[in-house]
Amino acid sequence: MNGPLELYFSPLACSLASRIALYEAQADAQFTEVDPKTKKTTDGADFLSIYPLGMVPLIRLGDGSILTENAAILQYIAARYPDAQLAGRDDLDRARLQQWLCFIGTELHKALFIPLFDKGLNDDAKQRALDKGKSRLAYLNNYLTGREFLLDHFTVADAYLYTVLNWSMATPVDLKPWPAIAAYHARLQSRPSVAKAFKEELALYKAEQARHQAA
Amino acid sequence: MNGPLELYFSPLACSLASRIALYEAQADAQFTEVDPKTKKTTDGADFLSIYPLGMVPLIRLGDGSILTENAAILQYIAARYPDAQLAGRDDLDRARLQQWLCFIGTELHKALFIPLFDKGLNDDAKQRALDKGKSRLAYLNNYLTGREFLLDHFTVADAYLYTVLNWSMATPVDLKPWPAIAAYHARLQSRPSVAKAFKEELALYKAEQARHQAA
Repeated sequence: MNGPLELYFSPLACSLASRIALYEAQADAQFTEVDPKTKKTTDGADFLSIYPLGMVPLIRLGDGSILTENAAILQYIAARYPDAQLAGRDDLDRARLQQWLCFIGTELHKALFIPLFDKGLNDDAKQRALDKGKSRLAYLNNYLTGREFLLDHFTVADAYLYTVLNWSMATPVDLKPWPAIAAYHARLQSRPSVAKAFKEELALYKAEQARHQAA
Repeated sequence: MNGPLELYFSPLACSLASRIALYEAQADAQFTEVDPKTKKTTDGADFLSIYPLGMVPLIRLGDGSILTENAAILQYIAARYPDAQLAGRDDLDRARLQQWLCFIGTELHKALFIPLFDKGLNDDAKQRALDKGKSRLAYLNNYLTGREFLLDHFTVADAYLYTVLNWSMATPVDLKPWPAIAAYHARLQSRPSVAKAFKEELALYKAEQARHQAA
């Protein structure tokens, strides 16, 4: 692969996890912002012509081909920068990493948070997502009790889980009843790669909100 | 790892994909049925004591440890039986496999079908899932046009996609407007490993339904 990776992202969307992974790997990467409403990049290109479903993250590899889906992109970054040790150390460890990526992607991201963010969904359905999410948060809280990371070291699954837990700030999901999750989130927030990525994307998120309000 | 894998499954649930993968690999495996309502195995054990979230598939490895989450289990089976060539052939191919596993797991399984199966969810929310699912099915139909499999050969992602598409039989999801998806589903249905797995689990599914009606 020639040339740097290009990450298409929207501020504080799940693509934040890929930015964190790229910072952890000290990778040579370009970042292209996609407005989640207009689906235009900052230079006015139509993101839907690149990916008809319009979802971030998407990475353009050095050879020009594209890769979509958060878990796939995170594992690709981990494999491309092995020195950063962002994946599992052996086959079973890699299986555990995939287990957590899948759990975060399906049980938390898709089943809990996406319904809460969906403006076209009624309140009963949002409440149902919250209710069903409790068993998942309880399970996660129990797992994280006494652990620093999801595996025995920081991996891309932690970058993803941190990113998803951030959304508790913008939804009725409350982390306070889950002390191990809340402590995990706060701990990761102070990790240099995470703090830098969050600070940058928070500024971009505020600018995006201001743009939308002005429009 | 000593001893055969043990797959915990429920008939025609997404664990069917793991059974197909194990048949493709001609693996030495045990299959333990979990009743989705009672969460008991056929020998009366409490599945919730093994996995508090009660979701299948789950595999017990030869050393007694367990692995959950469909995408992780499918990739574990593919890695354990490399001769069956159920995964990608190189790094980029593996990334594409993960992309499709993630797409199927999040966009189809979790976002489209799970709301339709959820008896506690209201009709407006189900209709919203159906409406949002259309762009995903259109994208998939376009991708499958002119292709036999998701990658250039049969992989665990095909086992998963076939399994999820099966659920169109039990939901309002209609494959007829998507001819490439419908043809893909019919083509896979005639693959020996798939036909065998489906036939066996359909019989178990009917027995399960009869049990529930008698209860």
